[in-house]
Amino acid sequence: MDIAARYKQVRQYTEKICAPLQTEDYVVQPVADVSPPKWHIGHTTWFFETFILKPYFMGYQEYNPDYNYVFNSYYETVGNRVIRTDRGNLSRPTVIEIYRYREYVDEAMNKFLCEKPSDELMELIVLGLHHEEQHQELLYTDIKYILGHNPLFPAYSKDYVSPKTGKPAADDFIKLKEGVYEIGFSGNGFCFDNELNRHKVYLNAFEISPNLVTNAEYLEFINAGGYNDFRHWHAEGWDWVQTNKISAPLYWHLVDEEWHQYTFNGLQPLHLKEPACHISYFEAYAYAMWKGMRLPTEFEWEAAASQFKWGKCWEWTESSYLPYPGFTKAPGAIGEYNGKFMVNQKVLRGASEVTSPGHSRITYRNFFQTHLRWQFTGIRLAK
Amino acid sequence: MDIAARYKQVRQYTEKICAPLQTEDYVVQPVADVSPPKWHIGHTTWFFETFILKPYFMGYQEYNPDYNYVFNSYYETVGNRVIRTDRGNLSRPTVIEIYRYREYVDEAMNKFLCEKPSDELMELIVLGLHHEEQHQELLYTDIKYILGHNPLFPAYSKDYVSPKTGKPAADDFIKLKEGVYEIGFSGNGFCFDNELNRHKVYLNAFEISPNLVTNAEYLEFINAGGYNDFRHWHAEGWDWVQTNKISAPLYWHLVDEEWHQYTFNGLQPLHLKEPACHISYFEAYAYAMWKGMRLPTEFEWEAAASQFKWGKCWEWTESSYLPYPGFTKAPGAIGEYNGKFMVNQKVLRGASEVTSPGHSRITYRNFFQTHLRWQFTGIRLAK
Amino acid sequence: MDIAARYKQVRQYTEKICAPLQTEDYVVQPVADVSPPKWHIGHTTWFFETFILKPYFMGYQEYNPDYNYVFNSYYETVGNRVIRTDRGNLSRPTVIEIYRYREYVDEAMNKFLCEKPSDELMELIVLGLHHEEQHQELLYTDIKYILGHNPLFPAYSKDYVSPKTGKPAADDFIKLKEGVYEIGFSGNGFCFDNELNRHKVYLNAFEISPNLVTNAEYLEFINAGGYNDFRHWHAEGWDWVQTNKISAPLYWHLVDEEWHQYTFNGLQPLHLKEPACHISYFEAYAYAMWKGMRLPTEFEWEAAASQFKWGKCWEWTESSYLPYPGFTKAPGAIGEYNGKFMVNQKVLRGASEVTSPGHSRITYRNFFQTHLRWQFTGIRLAK
Amino acid sequence: MDIAARYKQVRQYTEKICAPLQTEDYVVQPVADVSPPKWHIGHTTWFFETFILKPYFMGYQEYNPDYNYVFNSYYETVGNRVIRTDRGNLSRPTVIEIYRYREYVDEAMNKFLCEKPSDELMELIVLGLHHEEQHQELLYTDIKYILGHNPLFPAYSKDYVSPKTGKPAADDFIKLKEGVYEIGFSGNGFCFDNELNRHKVYLNAFEISPNLVTNAEYLEFINAGGYNDFRHWHAEGWDWVQTNKISAPLYWHLVDEEWHQYTFNGLQPLHLKEPACHISYFEAYAYAMWKGMRLPTEFEWEAAASQFKWGKCWEWTESSYLPYPGFTKAPGAIGEYNGKFMVNQKVLRGASEVTSPGHSRITYRNFFQTHLRWQFTGIRLAK
Repeated sequence: MDIAARYKQVRQYTEKICAPLQTEDYVVQPVADVSPPKWHIGHTTWFFETFILKPYFMGYQEYNPDYNYVFNSYYETVGNRVIRTDRGNLSRPTVIEIYRYREYVDEAMNKFLCEKPSDELMELIVLGLHHEEQHQELLYTDIKYILGHNPLFPAYSKDYVSPKTGKPAADDFIKLKEGVYEIGFSGNGFCFDNELNRHKVYLNAFEISPNLVTNAEYLEFINAGGYNDFRHWHAEGWDWVQTNKISAPLYWHLVDEEWHQYTFNGLQPLHLKEPACHISYFEAYAYAMWKGMRLPTEFEWEAAASQFKWGKCWEWTESSYLPYPGFTKAPGAIGEYNGKFMVNQKVLRGASEVTSPGHSRITYRNFFQTHLRWQFTGIRLAK
Repeated sequence: MDIAARYKQVRQYTEKICAPLQTEDYVVQPVADVSPPKWHIGHTTWFFETFILKPYFMGYQEYNPDYNYVFNSYYETVGNRVIRTDRGNLSRPTVIEIYRYREYVDEAMNKFLCEKPSDELMELIVLGLHHEEQHQELLYTDIKYILGHNPLFPAYSKDYVSPKTGKPAADDFIKLKEGVYEIGFSGNGFCFDNELNRHKVYLNAFEISPNLVTNAEYLEFINAGGYNDFRHWHAEGWDWVQTNKISAPLYWHLVDEEWHQYTFNGLQPLHLKEPACHISYFEAYAYAMWKGMRLPTEFEWEAAASQFKWGKCWEWTESSYLPYPGFTKAPGAIGEYNGKFMVNQKVLRGASEVTSPGHSRITYRNFFQTHLRWQFTGIRLAK
Repeated sequence: MDIAARYKQVRQYTEKICAPLQTEDYVVQPVADVSPPKWHIGHTTWFFETFILKPYFMGYQEYNPDYNYVFNSYYETVGNRVIRTDRGNLSRPTVIEIYRYREYVDEAMNKFLCEKPSDELMELIVLGLHHEEQHQELLYTDIKYILGHNPLFPAYSKDYVSPKTGKPAADDFIKLKEGVYEIGFSGNGFCFDNELNRHKVYLNAFEISPNLVTNAEYLEFINAGGYNDFRHWHAEGWDWVQTNKISAPLYWHLVDEEWHQYTFNGLQPLHLKEPACHISYFEAYAYAMWKGMRLPTEFEWEAAASQFKWGKCWEWTESSYLPYPGFTKAPGAIGEYNGKFMVNQKVLRGASEVTSPGHSRITYRNFFQTHLRWQFTGIRLAK
Repeated sequence: MDIAARYKQVRQYTEKICAPLQTEDYVVQPVADVSPPKWHIGHTTWFFETFILKPYFMGYQEYNPDYNYVFNSYYETVGNRVIRTDRGNLSRPTVIEIYRYREYVDEAMNKFLCEKPSDELMELIVLGLHHEEQHQELLYTDIKYILGHNPLFPAYSKDYVSPKTGKPAADDFIKLKEGVYEIGFSGNGFCFDNELNRHKVYLNAFEISPNLVTNAEYLEFINAGGYNDFRHWHAEGWDWVQTNKISAPLYWHLVDEEWHQYTFNGLQPLHLKEPACHISYFEAYAYAMWKGMRLPTEFEWEAAASQFKWGKCWEWTESSYLPYPGFTKAPGAIGEYNGKFMVNQKVLRGASEVTSPGHSRITYRNFFQTHLRWQFTGIRLAK
């Protein structure tokens, strides 16, 4: 597929995700980590305007200079920005105005892409598309949070179909031998800078489960008092449980003494065979401790991943998010993409049901802070 | 005017205030004190449904039981409610749905009002209309806050016309003699419970200004370093200035070293002859101290008010908001209306340019906490 | 008594209060409102050094210039100071060093007072003595807080004898007639600036209880669910109850299902006939509401006070702390004494068992914020 | 040395550290991370009473049951405890009382140790001694914080002699080859559970500096605007700098435009040749970025450590504090020692000038959160 077609495809997929929304759903920000959908629509557009059109498209006329302030996310290099917690306070620009901005930029990009960009530029454009795919997943998770925290529990769409979870694999753990393994991206396709360099790691023999922990299994942990016994938890995790009165995964609700979960189709009885999802790292760790096992490291995961299925939800690993040997940041604003988050976060591997098609790799390193749960995140055990 | 016509008139005025808004403007809540306009639209409707239709209109079918939770404000008697700071997190019900709710209730009220309500009920309905008029003023002030804190500074409406400030009265202070004065409401019309009982107070001789302090005069205070000299301030006011880095009234902005103010028509150069507005009690007190004068008590204000013009903005008094002798709360939820706020707030007297027509009286007692500025609030001096 | 003798008497009384303390008790500050005893010892000394010796005693050599920073309380006029919440973080100067400082200043004062100070200066010295008497009461209340919040509940002194509460007066409320009363200090003795000017107020007829509410009576309120029913409370009071999980007066503890109270003699069974004490204004108001009565205003209190006994604990009034007509602040630092606190506080009248001998008057206006309870504060009802 | 002698030696060293303190210095807690010295004295004693004497010494009489509540640190297994932030609010037990407690327990331990404890018990006693040595270092760092944050900047002791920093090694970086290295403790002596198991890691070729970064070098970073340029910092580090207005290492003060540092001997001009100390991980990382280098991992550090000198201050590594392969927690309270902190902390290697003699090993893993600076922590560069 040529770049113009690929651009169009990615950009349209973003709009498809938003199609079921009411105007009001685009606006709100119930917690700091969640951004209003209209902000995502504007920010992904701003990315192409700022990093492609303005520097490289001769004669391009900036749509509105104030939008840099409104739609910049965290790129300190390119100027001031609305602080993250204030995004939900902005009624203007309106949704219609932002879509107009999006159309304007898409038209310019379309013209620009006909001009056969240089290889270096192509790399930047492809980065922009992967950036947009990351925001597509965030759109799903932020929309779920916005609707799932509304007291009316509105469905996102009655037509949303969650991918079927197939028959689980046999329960036998997959065994890998001690030795040196190669980790990290190699090949010709796209990867993020944090997947480089490919390098050797020494792994001890280990075993890893072919299946994710299910809701039924996680319920056993709850029923066994797992949230009330500090011994399973990190000290910081236990503080988090106490302070926030956590007693179940996000989106779980006891209705008339029956567990329900909020889904894109609305509130539904808990589906016991599905993987447990919307779990923090703290909970994943505590569950593993309670089971007498542990989480895999990201290296173990990558070494074994060809032998199991993944993709219903992201899988917490025991690994902290750190640079690979030889990691270097790109110069300028693009260099702010990954490196500056490499502290106090955990790596997640795999993909989730709301990861954009094609936007996953065996070497992909997702990362979040240890208390966060609004992503589709679950548990795979190792020992 | 009969009650049905009066009802219609009040309800339509609320909608007229919102007419210039975009859907998104109805949704956001930039600070806890400001409510999203769609919440006001729903809450004033909920008031009539909850206190009139449900208890008194035989056969009335509640529109949606969940709305009690969403639109209750602070009436603990009538059940749980969305906490105030979360109002801006709700994208549903949508604006259209809330207007549909409003229409439904208006139709029912219309039928109900044809049935000639009892005197007692009439009182409650009239209270509901005055309640809605209070929210009309809040709608104006909340809309101003929402748009005035947007980095794009959009105008509310190019057609909004602020009432002309006439030629100021001669500067001579009005003098009143020492003696016993009668304070509080008497007569047949409507008043709130906090205006009762009419009672005697003993006042020392005092003088009160016929004019409000202007922007030009307030600017002198700023230029004289008023915000940097603790001696003019209460200890608590000085803390407030330091903590919040306050250096001018709300909505004042220095643009290229010229003072501007955000107005319903957008950002404009400061109009020097207008009364200083969006002033906290702390600032009003500090200004008066700096001038070697003081604020009037609410009793002095009421005793003298027939001798000066008022209505451009509310006027802070030195009086704390306390019950008049013989004050009693109504039983039930309506009793929560005023009494429970009678601590740590100051009385404001007069009215403002966004007070609803007819919704002001010489005995009217408005009240806010000492640090708040998003209302139209100004300064009249006494000595 | 001449001024030198009076000076010596007051200063020694402060030291007598501290005599039972261990060195460690002088140091800690469990909450911001409580100051470490060593700070009181130093601050009252600093007052005489700063306002008397340095400006008026020729040739006086300042003890240590750093002490101004350490022992200034809130006098912005006389320079920077350790912020209030940090007082308990200072291990130096040590207690011994501070007593050495105290001795040094006392010696200088002693010499100075032999020189017959001018009338104007005498006023300032007398103010300093009254200031120290106020800190004597704070010493008692702060010591009680420090020891009463220690998990070991150590007694302050086994020898401390709380004044006997005599037989209560007959329960009949005292009745006063409607009319103009005179309020405020007159005469030749000392008074604080906030007791002036004496002025007329108009009071409606009212009744006031001859007795304070007892622990037995307050217990009825608790047992009737008073802390669980929002209807008795101000909205702000109800928030305070919820946020801080308040369910009894300060220092009350349920031990084996029996109510106890921490006293200067240690933890003891609740003495039912004693006045309820360590009550916030919020609680005093809620109790009165529950009883179908109210708190008196400070004017009612003063008008009636010659007809009842007072002094076991301070009595909350319904009056906010505001200036009397004609109130003016003194110039300079001394002017910061009272006026700058005249916002968002309530007046208390009377005296408490730890008020210094002679340090009380029928016109005395004590004041605290509405949530505070570490003072000896109780309830007298009116209607 | 036999165990009784070793016990005595360790216990006496703790008391020697405290010898220069005033009683008041034992009491205060200026921030949550710092504990009052008297708490350390009591807590290390409580450790032996709780884990050795009470379970294993027949007929031992507990000193005071309330002390468990007062001196438990974070062992949830052994009951409730004073919350960490409240330690500085306790004036009782007094310092003398705690030393009496210490003497009582030491006498009992002395008797107990004559009875030739079993091997298993020996292990626990040795753990207790290492635990006390850790608190000895904390005593030094907490005392430094307490005195160094007092506005009078008192010296801890005029006699304290900081170990001489010898001539720096030649500047050439030490080079290590790519390959598999063995990491972790082996041998017969004591180690903590977190140093096990010894295991293989694969390291790429790297270079590591033989010297720590000096004050002079760090000053270049400051003078080059390092604290004002977000590009050198992690996003979370940059937030920390902004929020806390950080502009230099802890204990650095600009006095008359000359840099000074607070030391155990009082405030002194900055010693340029000394290693930069009291640096957070955030700062260490930013400095390395600015230099175009990086911090070593803990594995690189351990692989190279035999080739350079260490011990003036702990050295931040890039490694997160995570379990080694095969790590298991001990059962019971002792199992809370290390494992539950293995999240969101960084490993430090080496030792500092206040580490107890003998309490350091090439495999020792110290760990702290990324923003902390009150430990003696510095920077070694790698590339």
